[in-house]
Amino acid sequence: MKSWIESANTAEGHFPVLNLPFGVFSRVGEAPRCATAIGDFVLDLAALEDAGLIDAGAGRAVFGEPALNSFMGLGTPAWDSVRSRLTELLAEDGAPDLRSDAALCARALIPAGDVALHLPFSVSEYTDFYAGRQHAQNVGTMFRGPENALPPNWLHIPIGYNGRASTVVVSGTAIRRPLGQTKPAESDAPIFGPCRRLDIELEMGAVVGLPNPFGEPVTVAEADDMIFGYVLLNDWSARDIQAWEYQPLGPFQAKVFATSISPWVVTKAALEPFRVSTPAREKPLLPYLREPGPMLYDVELEVRMQPEEAAAASTISRTNYKHMYYSAAQQLAHHAIGGCRMNNGDLLGSGTISGPEKDQFGSLLELTWGGKEPLTLETGETRTFIEDGDTMTLMGWAQGDDHRIGFGECAGTILPAPTERNW
Amino acid sequence: MKSWIESANTAEGHFPVLNLPFGVFSRVGEAPRCATAIGDFVLDLAALEDAGLIDAGAGRAVFGEPALNSFMGLGTPAWDSVRSRLTELLAEDGAPDLRSDAALCARALIPAGDVALHLPFSVSEYTDFYAGRQHAQNVGTMFRGPENALPPNWLHIPIGYNGRASTVVVSGTAIRRPLGQTKPAESDAPIFGPCRRLDIELEMGAVVGLPNPFGEPVTVAEADDMIFGYVLLNDWSARDIQAWEYQPLGPFQAKVFATSISPWVVTKAALEPFRVSTPAREKPLLPYLREPGPMLYDVELEVRMQPEEAAAASTISRTNYKHMYYSAAQQLAHHAIGGCRMNNGDLLGSGTISGPEKDQFGSLLELTWGGKEPLTLETGETRTFIEDGDTMTLMGWAQGDDHRIGFGECAGTILPAPTERNW
Repeated sequence: MKSWIESANTAEGHFPVLNLPFGVFSRVGEAPRCATAIGDFVLDLAALEDAGLIDAGAGRAVFGEPALNSFMGLGTPAWDSVRSRLTELLAEDGAPDLRSDAALCARALIPAGDVALHLPFSVSEYTDFYAGRQHAQNVGTMFRGPENALPPNWLHIPIGYNGRASTVVVSGTAIRRPLGQTKPAESDAPIFGPCRRLDIELEMGAVVGLPNPFGEPVTVAEADDMIFGYVLLNDWSARDIQAWEYQPLGPFQAKVFATSISPWVVTKAALEPFRVSTPAREKPLLPYLREPGPMLYDVELEVRMQPEEAAAASTISRTNYKHMYYSAAQQLAHHAIGGCRMNNGDLLGSGTISGPEKDQFGSLLELTWGGKEPLTLETGETRTFIEDGDTMTLMGWAQGDDHRIGFGECAGTILPAPTERNW
Repeated sequence: MKSWIESANTAEGHFPVLNLPFGVFSRVGEAPRCATAIGDFVLDLAALEDAGLIDAGAGRAVFGEPALNSFMGLGTPAWDSVRSRLTELLAEDGAPDLRSDAALCARALIPAGDVALHLPFSVSEYTDFYAGRQHAQNVGTMFRGPENALPPNWLHIPIGYNGRASTVVVSGTAIRRPLGQTKPAESDAPIFGPCRRLDIELEMGAVVGLPNPFGEPVTVAEADDMIFGYVLLNDWSARDIQAWEYQPLGPFQAKVFATSISPWVVTKAALEPFRVSTPAREKPLLPYLREPGPMLYDVELEVRMQPEEAAAASTISRTNYKHMYYSAAQQLAHHAIGGCRMNNGDLLGSGTISGPEKDQFGSLLELTWGGKEPLTLETGETRTFIEDGDTMTLMGWAQGDDHRIGFGECAGTILPAPTERNW
């Protein structure tokens, strides 16, 4: 399907009329409000709502808010009806209401380069999972040897842990290298200082729109209905801090300093043609975790690394979300199985997405095999872990016949650690 | 110091004029609003604010809100000035403004039995720590033997993990036994069903009032200034679910189903006379974790257990917060050391508080030594873990010469697990 907005009709653009992701933007001096992306433009949904061209059915305006949460809380009928209406307004042979109103177009269609994109929703809580089979195998092999790589529960439980919502930031936010406690092998006692093994984790994030009541589990199908859409997610990780702290209660300071997400939430509806089943089960799952249908998505993913002075980024990994052993719907059903209340605005990280080949791994820990095999970038520079000034960018899209359903990018540049104080 | 409210002057009451904790209450049909507790009464702070008797200095009313967060965000000068003014209004020889206004007294002083107490603040995020030396030793001994009981990092790091804020509930909320996945030793594969080893963890919770900026660590002294006050906290735990899931990323479904807190936040000012230093260090701490002064508190704690049909509760443990190896200020400084943004409304669980003697342990896991040594209650019934209908109550107070600074109680009754569905 083509749009009357020409830049939306390219083969490799991320935002054709078949995508219509949701986000939050502002121009300098303006209040943030909701938008969709179409070609090279941001379309101001608050302006369309004010003009009476769209209505989410909430009985009040929702797109003038600085976050998608209200809209996300309306559920599938509202999500679908707004999507249908936007498709109608933007398709080549659709309704003339927007395209024929030059004043509204001038007001509502804003070149993407002229806006700042904000965190698209207020993150209620963030939970990170560990659902990549190859990643678990890789990390387990490095830490425990190949025979004991996979923990005994891994094929039965979508292993997850609670993350930190307050440091989820939007793509483009600079990330300060964390200070922390580590214990070098050669040292008897731990030492304090900047992280020296700073890493990324390439993940997808599922965004929860609808809650479940306290004390009431949900099925996998119900969990899927609760999910509003997906983003790219970089679970920044301090490997040296993690190694010293993570036993027995899991990662904490190694992860809480920052998590970046892409600014556009791509809806389930846009991803619908790309649904795939999770890989064949190596052990049967308990019934509460079984998928009633395909719940994973075929999404191409790339990781790019760019040193401060480099003219261009080097692509250091190419993989696909379809490699994951558990879907977000399975993870969400597991999250709620004991009665945990899930809320509008909850964010679920998929876990690191590593494909089976070495150039498909989703972290530097795996790509450089614990720092032992440095990567050579296109500039000739080498890297084991991230250095100050490096920019790490995740890219993702579902590949259609002649178009892409894109997530845009999820980028972050590393700043030096804070100056140490007189503690 | 005595109050003109006689019930505030008893030796064992929890709410003398020296306490003045903050909470949120309502009567049937009324909107929740902020209060303090004095003797057998709840004092409506919104009514006092409306009448012009107190002013938090925010430039607007804050006590009519259904949560303490706005007041908590004002910081020490506002906390102290409201406390001083309330002391003046309630002390025997204080200002007559309240006591001489019979109409206001009738409106604002409400018998505690006539109100419902609500969650006192909106919980932003919840982090649970593991700072009890004896608890770590006990649990480690059960899981790994006495030689390997204490993890190598434990004496250097206040070990913590992110918890789940959405299921933090106020004392009195019924707790549904969670469903989940467990793996009995005799079974090859995991099974699904209600938790069979349901437990408590006796903890204190520190309530964060003031934030730190993203990327900026704080000192232990600054962390102490960020803390508004303390509550009792029961970190309900499903031990059989925990045993199967917790490696390698820590407890998740074993804990996320519920955490109960007491309804009154006892302020740092009220606890000031009871400050004590943490116990002697077994290993020197890194400078960023060193306490500039006493940061822990001498708070007597009790655990009571009452089966559904029992006429009275049995006290099954008596211990003290002063046994903890790390203070909440140290935990908060550690939490922010990598730049994690801490927010108004964050809740930090101390970790299970177990004293050195067997009748001072803070969980049934420890009190019954993994279920091997059942407790005998006063009714003659025995218990290893919690049965449906049992009520578990935590009590706590700082013991003064002729008064107590009390936390009230933190209670919860266990409901049967939800009926299993056709998953």
